[in-house]
Amino acid sequence: MTTTPVWSVDPRTGKQREQVAVEATPREVDEAVRAAHACRGALADAGARAAFLRAAAGLLDEAAAHVIEAADAETALGPGRLTGELARTTGQLRAFADAVDEGAYLDVRIDRADPSLSPPRPELRRYKVPLGVVAVYAASNFPLAFSVPGGDTASALAAGCPVVVKVHPDHPATSELCASLLRRAAVSAGLPADVVSVLHGFDAGLELIRHPLVAAAGFTGSLRGGRALFDAAAARPVPIPFHGELGSLNPVVVTPAAAAERAEEIGAGLAGAVTLGVGQFCVKPGLVLVPEGADGDRLADALTKALGETEPGVLLDHRMRENFVTGVRERAALPGVTAPVTPGSGGEHTVGAGYLTVSAGRLAGDGLAGDGAYEVLLEECFGPVTVVARYASQAEAAAVLGRLPGNLSATLQLSSAETEGAPGPAAGLIAQVTGLAGRIVVNGWPTGVAVAPAQHHGGPYPAATSHSTSVGGTAIERWLRPVAYQSVPEALLPAELREANPLGLPRRVTGG
Amino acid sequence: MTTTPVWSVDPRTGKQREQVAVEATPREVDEAVRAAHACRGALADAGARAAFLRAAAGLLDEAAAHVIEAADAETALGPGRLTGELARTTGQLRAFADAVDEGAYLDVRIDRADPSLSPPRPELRRYKVPLGVVAVYAASNFPLAFSVPGGDTASALAAGCPVVVKVHPDHPATSELCASLLRRAAVSAGLPADVVSVLHGFDAGLELIRHPLVAAAGFTGSLRGGRALFDAAAARPVPIPFHGELGSLNPVVVTPAAAAERAEEIGAGLAGAVTLGVGQFCVKPGLVLVPEGADGDRLADALTKALGETEPGVLLDHRMRENFVTGVRERAALPGVTAPVTPGSGGEHTVGAGYLTVSAGRLAGDGLAGDGAYEVLLEECFGPVTVVARYASQAEAAAVLGRLPGNLSATLQLSSAETEGAPGPAAGLIAQVTGLAGRIVVNGWPTGVAVAPAQHHGGPYPAATSHSTSVGGTAIERWLRPVAYQSVPEALLPAELREANPLGLPRRVTGG
Repeated sequence: MTTTPVWSVDPRTGKQREQVAVEATPREVDEAVRAAHACRGALADAGARAAFLRAAAGLLDEAAAHVIEAADAETALGPGRLTGELARTTGQLRAFADAVDEGAYLDVRIDRADPSLSPPRPELRRYKVPLGVVAVYAASNFPLAFSVPGGDTASALAAGCPVVVKVHPDHPATSELCASLLRRAAVSAGLPADVVSVLHGFDAGLELIRHPLVAAAGFTGSLRGGRALFDAAAARPVPIPFHGELGSLNPVVVTPAAAAERAEEIGAGLAGAVTLGVGQFCVKPGLVLVPEGADGDRLADALTKALGETEPGVLLDHRMRENFVTGVRERAALPGVTAPVTPGSGGEHTVGAGYLTVSAGRLAGDGLAGDGAYEVLLEECFGPVTVVARYASQAEAAAVLGRLPGNLSATLQLSSAETEGAPGPAAGLIAQVTGLAGRIVVNGWPTGVAVAPAQHHGGPYPAATSHSTSVGGTAIERWLRPVAYQSVPEALLPAELREANPLGLPRRVTGG
Repeated sequence: MTTTPVWSVDPRTGKQREQVAVEATPREVDEAVRAAHACRGALADAGARAAFLRAAAGLLDEAAAHVIEAADAETALGPGRLTGELARTTGQLRAFADAVDEGAYLDVRIDRADPSLSPPRPELRRYKVPLGVVAVYAASNFPLAFSVPGGDTASALAAGCPVVVKVHPDHPATSELCASLLRRAAVSAGLPADVVSVLHGFDAGLELIRHPLVAAAGFTGSLRGGRALFDAAAARPVPIPFHGELGSLNPVVVTPAAAAERAEEIGAGLAGAVTLGVGQFCVKPGLVLVPEGADGDRLADALTKALGETEPGVLLDHRMRENFVTGVRERAALPGVTAPVTPGSGGEHTVGAGYLTVSAGRLAGDGLAGDGAYEVLLEECFGPVTVVARYASQAEAAAVLGRLPGNLSATLQLSSAETEGAPGPAAGLIAQVTGLAGRIVVNGWPTGVAVAPAQHHGGPYPAATSHSTSVGGTAIERWLRPVAYQSVPEALLPAELREANPLGLPRRVTGG
């Protein structure tokens, strides 16, 4: 039997660093899922789960120097960014441990029996139980926060679901290191190591989504790869929920009043949001609606200046670099599209940031009915580039927004008078972008998705394949299903539902 | 252009009563969806929605005599059952109006800005917005409560989603009558009539699920039809959530101690649950695990007596009658299966209730590895029949449960000592059936699904295609998606999220 090696590659040179693992065979996928499945009983202990998540955070923090070094060597994201990402990751693990302790995620609801109703109501007690083994597909662009120890894994484990992670090929060594820390943390909390494990290989990922004992999946990645897995999840004899984040354009609208007031600030801020992490964020602004005229010109000049001063950067892998260069070239070649700062290949292994401009009229399809050539400008281009569309009227801006698919975020840049409710397009814009995004940002930038109870990181397809979030407190809801207990005597109820509420859980009680 | 007539048929005679409508053409489907889509703005008014739902309940109550007569003529379910079903339906509409007033379904969460965190947390305010047009596929067996004015429609309208109902061909006249009442109620509450409309025809149902402006679907019906629609929903360019209830076996386990204590009572109760509504309930017990031996024999005798005394009944349509007769015959022909009371065709238009018995060992597959012949006994058979499987040991009963697909309900019949926590199989059974059903009933019967805040009517596939419920307070969650507002100034926030909380909504606030 031949094995397929998995190499760790240095994106700064394109050279293989070391062989980290081999791709999992179908049999190994099956063994990993069965081993995870056997851990469900152990994971039912909420106290152990919380302790495990905190221990995992602790071990990751202790090993921070090694983890960051490993991740930087494979992703070139740099120690600064990776230090922040690790803090976000361990903070996330601890936040889910707190959520387990608090117990609101169980959504306990109790209806007392009411014989006076017609028909009489029996006693009903409802909470949520874990789904079973969760498959997590790690992202390229967050080797920690959306990968092995990331939000999908943390929320699934918090829910009581064992996790099998399909590692992203851009950071196999980091993934192995993180997996070993998570597994050690599990054992330290009295849980079996197999509550979390990792697999390498594209084919292994497909085997995983089709495995009968896999009960749900989380994914962050491309539209193409995500849709293939979504389709496989839906086509199973027993379909399973597939919570995928598949890409987003993240439109920004700058009102004329905002441009008049803060053109330079907005241009510089936009440059920062476009180049952060070398443009490799799911929430990078990919389309910016800027008014025509002098104020918009000033904004563009500030953007030109800031992007022109940006150093070339290294993308996560060479395939991405090729896709970026090709994607930018295809867009720039469209009639009427100009590139004030040409994005594209920098050095042999780097890319330069830049932006394209086009009139909003072309994107809105005015006079171009049937010509879909400009559709590509409404698709995500991963890397440090954005498209600035200059609009002549509010109606034109609205027409462009009306053509967009679903998004993770939409951002409005408003003037101070508009934020105070002065008449203008602001209210209409808020309403319109609410229809096409999961998060609305005013006078900020969508990059930097706070890990917080009220966060929503999702949105209409293809931003997400479900209406759930992959970041924030409610991400745990994805891995649970409700069960109602009717007239089940106290002695046989799960502790979470007993009348005496021995676990002190928050609950909603109706009647009696 | 030819039109396909839609007839109302009397199941008591098989004769056409009247032509009610024609099947919708693709163009008519498109028009209905567009008209519904245009109502989204009007439905954003929560006060109008609540008034509409209450007005609909009022008009249905006023027209009760006509509605029940129409439904009985098409379904033969009888005035008694239909009077109860109408009360359930109007109660459901009013309960969702109350839910709209209360506002907890919006799940408002507010995180105050916290600059002391690393990274600083921006202000986040999250609530839920309606998805858009909802397609509802009406059920055959509940012409009111799971059809035009039923739970899917009520919960979707409550959420703010316009509804297009694909009518079930078993009760087109009832559906038209109910639609006219709902549409009149909408207008009385100041809403456009097109917030709810109906379509007839199988092909129209397929057109509907594929329409780009349809945002979600609810379905109650067969595994085959539901899976076809689920697949179509998943295969769309933009996939949509499909909340389908596709069938359920609803296992019952009688412990030896329960049989010893209440054999006759359990046998008689089981007969009632199997024959209620002529066995046409989604939660009819279709498999009953009864211990071998004298106590189990007494239970079987009581069941034989009660079913033997049951009058033949009329099924919803002649196709169902044929499927029932064929399905029972196929099952009864299996080696080792006996029919103490033979179910099957009664008179020309009726069927007789009955039951089959088999040893649990055959269902568990003991000594029959590879022989899938008995699998059919683990599939739902719509109509007044159940399968009693006699088990020799707890392990054998557990082995049968271990082979079951997902279920809406699972029922345990326990002794009084077991309900008080005496040692025995009860705790293990509760744990096992929690894994395979959405609702666990002890010492009752699963028929009669209470409309209540803590209800859960769903379960692992094929009981449901999602982890949501179609009955109870949380059914509204299916038609909403979260949106988070980051740093959006007070003047531009939706009223639901303003700091002053002008609508008095319940909310969870973090920080500050």
